[in-house]
Amino acid sequence: MLTLPSLRADPHVRLVACAAPRRASRDAFVAEFGGTAHEEVEALAADPAVEAVYVATPHQMHRAHAEAVARAGKHLLVEKPLAIALDDARAIVASAHRAGVHLITGPSHSFDQPVQRACEIIASGRLGRVRMMHALNFTDFLYRPRRPEELRTEEGGGVIFSQAVHQIDMLRLLAQAPARSVYAMTGAWDASRPTEGAYGAMIGFKGGGFANVTYSGYAHYLTDMMQDGIGELGWPVDPGTYGAGRRALASLGRPEDEAALKGDRTYGAVQAPPPASHAEHFGPVIVCCDRADLRLTPKGVEIWGDLERSFLPAPPDPAPRSPVLRALYRAIRRNEPPDQAAGWGLSSLEICHAILASARSGMPISLDHR
Amino acid sequence: MLTLPSLRADPHVRLVACAAPRRASRDAFVAEFGGTAHEEVEALAADPAVEAVYVATPHQMHRAHAEAVARAGKHLLVEKPLAIALDDARAIVASAHRAGVHLITGPSHSFDQPVQRACEIIASGRLGRVRMMHALNFTDFLYRPRRPEELRTEEGGGVIFSQAVHQIDMLRLLAQAPARSVYAMTGAWDASRPTEGAYGAMIGFKGGGFANVTYSGYAHYLTDMMQDGIGELGWPVDPGTYGAGRRALASLGRPEDEAALKGDRTYGAVQAPPPASHAEHFGPVIVCCDRADLRLTPKGVEIWGDLERSFLPAPPDPAPRSPVLRALYRAIRRNEPPDQAAGWGLSSLEICHAILASARSGMPISLDHR
Repeated sequence: MLTLPSLRADPHVRLVACAAPRRASRDAFVAEFGGTAHEEVEALAADPAVEAVYVATPHQMHRAHAEAVARAGKHLLVEKPLAIALDDARAIVASAHRAGVHLITGPSHSFDQPVQRACEIIASGRLGRVRMMHALNFTDFLYRPRRPEELRTEEGGGVIFSQAVHQIDMLRLLAQAPARSVYAMTGAWDASRPTEGAYGAMIGFKGGGFANVTYSGYAHYLTDMMQDGIGELGWPVDPGTYGAGRRALASLGRPEDEAALKGDRTYGAVQAPPPASHAEHFGPVIVCCDRADLRLTPKGVEIWGDLERSFLPAPPDPAPRSPVLRALYRAIRRNEPPDQAAGWGLSSLEICHAILASARSGMPISLDHR
Repeated sequence: MLTLPSLRADPHVRLVACAAPRRASRDAFVAEFGGTAHEEVEALAADPAVEAVYVATPHQMHRAHAEAVARAGKHLLVEKPLAIALDDARAIVASAHRAGVHLITGPSHSFDQPVQRACEIIASGRLGRVRMMHALNFTDFLYRPRRPEELRTEEGGGVIFSQAVHQIDMLRLLAQAPARSVYAMTGAWDASRPTEGAYGAMIGFKGGGFANVTYSGYAHYLTDMMQDGIGELGWPVDPGTYGAGRRALASLGRPEDEAALKGDRTYGAVQAPPPASHAEHFGPVIVCCDRADLRLTPKGVEIWGDLERSFLPAPPDPAPRSPVLRALYRAIRRNEPPDQAAGWGLSSLEICHAILASARSGMPISLDHR
């Protein structure tokens, strides 16, 4: 639903087919886009009208679906995280390589316009090297309606797989260097939502740069307040909704009710959101370079230099996720894949697992084997 | 100079003597307060009019000065850090214990009114346990005028001893639990200021709480912008001064010029600052408890609860450092020392050293021996 406005608006995208188990979703697809609505992913992959498939199914289904698409020789845009189990992610990467198709892990907030602008500034070299980064995000993630497996870590639930991966993707891209170590502590503090809801982590990068990362999904303080009151998807936050997540959950009886509430928000059941007023973001990010700090906001990039400040705007895009779609287009039509290509999603997933492993052991996890 | 307005305003404090090597400082003291201005600390310590001594000399002199005062049976307020070398800090603590005098390490930002208010809320238990904390501070610390030793880590220079100790003091107090592990990375990125100017650290506390801490003194982004534009000492930041630190240094020739510029700012040379409009602070601090996040600002404590928000104001105090003076008074006259008593400064200094040791080794440092 969140990528739909961009899919609709992008001139390079035509939606010609879908696969969905829900009748309502299939009917809505055909009514809006025409084309073919398949029940099974294999039929979608075999559809001769299809050039690339966006795999936006639950994490644990990515492997089967991505392998089916790759086997049929179609390109892939796969939602982050690429998978939950590392073996599944490796299998997905291998199947794309074997088939010679492009695979992009996304959308993730590493494609957000302010992140892209910051990367361009960093890549120019005029600010020197990236030395330290800071990323912070406090959301209501744990109190949005969830399917039961989204509250079980071993099935990919909690904030590590769904949320940390955004920060990891942004920081890896901004660092322009491979991650080499992870040290982390995690928190699972609500027995009624028994999965990680928070973490702190330090990521070391090759060349000596490092990032300090903090996340809480416990629906108390919201870092959107540090981002001009703009929410993750680019709309102003309504202060009147404070506490709404916990209130809605408290009104439900059984886990099935909560899953149904989430299901009610899928395609064919509700309208896609209108164009946002600002760029998407994933909490305040500061990048310290030798000669300036960059602060990313939903409005653009603040450049805090040695002697003066400046601002590089990132005007709101009616299709906020167009960068990931452009990246897919350039990969397929010009053979110019982005950083977030096949192995990228695997590497980010390794860092997610390293966060959990470090929190368990109390020791830093080396990623130097890569 | 920064504590002077509070010393002047506090009804429990009378300044009856001082010791200072600079003639101008001694003359100014006598002209303002009367009493006796000594050249040597031993003479000050022996002065029968003196009940307690505030040791605000450079870090490396704390041991000799504190020992002289304790030997004379006078109580002590010692500026943070308690010392640079751990042996010196241990000697200071031992001398205070031996003499049976009270020693408080302060002022530090752990005495700030919003920190004190947050501690009271936490101690009430109504929000559950402290689970995760986040502290961030970006300042111009490294580009303020410095004596040469303030740019040499082994002599206590850089941000670890002078700045990290504030965050450590605040977090230890808010955690209400002993620190048990430190993992950190540090940065010394400006060859012309060859000491640590930045760090990221994770501190684990007994009971499982943890803190994620980030600091940069490289005079680029300023986190005062996240604190309603209020600076560390409680005054609004003047945007027109951006880059002033680097500009002033660039206009100087030799290291002696810079030291002279710093000397020009001491007592007897300039006026003490006027009362501040807000509480002092040391950057944004967020404390995540089971049932609320507390966000500390120069105006007070924001309480982001399960279902609603509230705000506990910390009105500006004409004597912003009165809490540390009240603590000294209560220790001496009522034998009720604060948390930040003798061993406290030693423990915080151990964490400073642990930050450096962890950054060198790439491994977490255990503090469990304490």
